[in-house]
Formats: sequence, structure tokens, C-alpha cells
Amino acid sequence: MKRVRFRDSAGNVRGGRWTVEDGEELVTAAAGPYGRISFGDETFSPDEVEILPPCEPTKIVCVGLNYADHADEQGKDVPDRPLLFLKPPNTVTSHGKRVTLPKDKARIDFEAELGVVIGEQARNVKAENAEDVIAGYTCVNDLSNRDDQEVEQNWVRGKAFDGAAPIGPLVATPEHLKDDATIESRVNGEVKQQSSIDQFIFSVPELIEEITEFMTLEPGDVISTGTPAGVGPLADGDEVEIEIEGVGTLRHTVHIP
Amino acid sequence: MKRVRFRDSAGNVRGGRWTVEDGEELVTAAAGPYGRISFGDETFSPDEVEILPPCEPTKIVCVGLNYADHADEQGKDVPDRPLLFLKPPNTVTSHGKRVTLPKDKARIDFEAELGVVIGEQARNVKAENAEDVIAGYTCVNDLSNRDDQEVEQNWVRGKAFDGAAPIGPLVATPEHLKDDATIESRVNGEVKQQSSIDQFIFSVPELIEEITEFMTLEPGDVISTGTPAGVGPLADGDEVEIEIEGVGTLRHTVHIP
Repeated sequence: MKRVRFRDSAGNVRGGRWTVEDGEELVTAAAGPYGRISFGDETFSPDEVEILPPCEPTKIVCVGLNYADHADEQGKDVPDRPLLFLKPPNTVTSHGKRVTLPKDKARIDFEAELGVVIGEQARNVKAENAEDVIAGYTCVNDLSNRDDQEVEQNWVRGKAFDGAAPIGPLVATPEHLKDDATIESRVNGEVKQQSSIDQFIFSVPELIEEITEFMTLEPGDVISTGTPAGVGPLADGDEVEIEIEGVGTLRHTVHIP
Repeated sequence: MKRVRFRDSAGNVRGGRWTVEDGEELVTAAAGPYGRISFGDETFSPDEVEILPPCEPTKIVCVGLNYADHADEQGKDVPDRPLLFLKPPNTVTSHGKRVTLPKDKARIDFEAELGVVIGEQARNVKAENAEDVIAGYTCVNDLSNRDDQEVEQNWVRGKAFDGAAPIGPLVATPEHLKDDATIESRVNGEVKQQSSIDQFIFSVPELIEEITEFMTLEPGDVISTGTPAGVGPLADGDEVEIEIEGVGTLRHTVHIP
């Protein structure tokens, strides 16, 4: 099942289902909206409604350097435990939006990531039980202001600016995600990152065990699992797509004032 | 005015007023509850009700090294702009609670801090207008797990563990806080930190301008403004008090499993 939150033409927030034919999102995403959204007895095209963030996280717990190729690209050693950082709720934005980025920065990068959406309040969850607390998966663009990230101890200006976490467009229940699902980012249609989640240094269950050892995760919270090699800078007007096989495609544009 | 959130004997969450005689909190806090809580036509002693966090932050934006004496104590240079880090909502706990700290750590420190409670949604607020967005002030204990803080890039294990931000017991409106208000921490009644907020490197208005330049603050969000010299480790069973002149005294105990 694929769940979506959207605002209908009357302004009401609805929790609907997103129906996609097998493989449709991989073939048609670049060409425009794919699938159909249903709520009650109504059905909409995704471009007829305002897509909202598919969940309402109290926090996004992000993982740095979780693909060996990206760690190498950044000139960093592979960490011996997950490198964690936080994106608070002000960072959340959704599919279809124009995201205004901080001005006067030399480099703000896209980072395609698999987002794990938490389904129930979770603490001290062992890896072998991690699937019990996963509602599903979504796409995250971990937007990163490198100018500030490189000079601050904690990546707050670098990673927690308003709009720094476009997520969505939907939450796909776990059976949709294969162990070797592809993850890809495109900017203005050009492929920039292309990898598979089988390249994870720390698996999703390992991340859930590590994080819930010291922190309670709430329903709707998101773990963003790191990005593969190929990150790069964005310019005013760019359109970014983050596509995860079996999950869907997140698309947004950026505006730099 | 001093506002308090509490749970009454029927389990209902109430927003009440905390009435304190002038100077009473400075004289009597160590001896037990001080002041009276009122809601509707009922009045309670603070020890008759469960004191809740005085606000419900979507994020606490914390400032490191904001008193020159503490920067020196930590062997750090005074920063040329505020060192920021984040405490998400899972860190919030309240006055009167027993806070369970992470186990198997060599050192978890108390840090007395003035908390600025935001009163309205705020972005791009200049320092000269900062008072418009301040609801009031509270006490924060920025509990810090040094074992992990010292070895991680972002202070997530170090600063964002469950219960890492006891706050309260109340929000005092701005007229209660003098420019040279004293800030003090005590552990089991012994004074550990004693300073004045006139020692701030970055003032509250400067912090609000700096943070809202890139991040929207929500009503109930908290800026925790850094701690003076004298931080130190906690042991199982310790009672911590954070007292800010004119605001009140936050008291809690700690449990280390």
C-alpha cells in the first residue's frame, strides 16, 4: 500500500492511497505525474491536489556517510558507528513545492536518500525486531548548505534551514522495497546519483537499534539513511527528482533568492 | 506573569498561573515548593500537582560557549558567531521528575541555562525587534553526555538523548528578567555554577536574529542560551536545581541505571 497526505480543493487535509501500476513510477515519473490518488469515493490525479509531506515528523534523524562510495567522494573514512545529525520539523517540505534555499551561499547540494517512516513509538528496539516499528519508506532530499556545514561543529545552519528536507510523495509499506532497490537523483532530468540500497554501510535495522538505544522515535518520525556518491550543487530554478525503486519519485524545484 | 502547565488530580492538562511573592523563589526554593498555582477558582501548592514542561517545543535550539568563562573552562576559543546545536522534543522533561540518564557513561554533566520561550512564529527577526517574539523565560538543564559528545561530529548521542532537557517550572514574562539576573546551579544543595546573564557573549536579541535568519521558530520553541563555568558530572540519585533570578527554580533528580 502507498499512503499519501494531500490537501483537496476545499482545503481539507486528507490521508489517501496512491495507486501505481507495477513499474509505472520508474517509466513515467520524468514525464509528469504518475499513478492516482484516492480518498473515499473520489479519485484524483496527483497534479490536481496539493501533495503534503507524507508524515509529520517531530524529528528527522539523518545518517551521514552511509554509502561507502559517498564517504570516499567526501574524503572521509567509513565511520565505525553511524554518523548522526538532526533535521527539525521546520526543514520539512513536500513533493511539488518550490523550495527557497538560503541566499548568498556558494554551494547547496542535493542528496538523494531513503527515508524510513516510523509507525509506532519506539525505544530500545533490537535490529531483529526493527521491522515491527517501520510504517514504510519514502524519498528524502537531504539538502545541504556546504558553506556553513564545513565550518560548524554541529550541522545546524548547514542542514537544518527551512525547507532542507523535501520528503515524499508517499509512504510505501515495507513489502514494496527490495533489498537491492535502486536510488537515483536527477537534476533537470540528468542523472546525478545512481546506486542501490544494498550498498548501505549500516542497514535500516542496525540504524533503528543504534538510534533507539538513546532516543525515543515517534510515529511519523523519519530516519534518513544517507546518500550515495554523486552529490552536487543546485542553481536557482533547478528541478530535482529523487527516485527509489518500488517507492516512488519525489520532485521539487529550488529557488535561490 | 508566570505561566505553568500542570496535570491536575483528574489527569487534565491545565495552563495555570504561578504566583510568587517578590524574592520568594530565591529564599525558599531549596527548602521545598514555593509559590501557588491557580487555575480557574482553584489554587494548588506546586507539590500537589504534576508540573509539566511549561511549553511544547518542536525544537530546542541550543547555544554552546555563550559565557566567556565556560568557553575558557572547556579550553575553547570564544566563537565569532553562536555555536548552535539541537535538542528535539524527545529530550524534554519537566520540574519534579526523576530523569533516567544513559547508562555506562563516564560523565554526564549538568549545565544551567536560561531558556527563551518563543511566543509567535518567527523568521528573519532583527535584533531590535526580537522582544516582539519572546513569550518569556524559563530554566533549562542542558544535560550533556560527554563520552559521546567528545567523539561525534554532531552532538546527537551527546545532547539529544531522552530526557536531556529538563525545562521549567514556568514561563516568566520578560519584565521579570533583569539584564544582570543571576543564574545558579546546585547539586544536592551545593552551589556549582553561579554567574549572571550579563556575561553573555551573544545577547538574546542577537541569538534570535542569527537563528531566524535561516530557521523558522514556532510558538513554544525554546532557545537555550548557553551555560556559565562550573559544569560538572552527575551521579545516580543527585538532585539538581537550576535557579534564575526573577524566573524561578527548576528542580529534578537523576537516575543512572
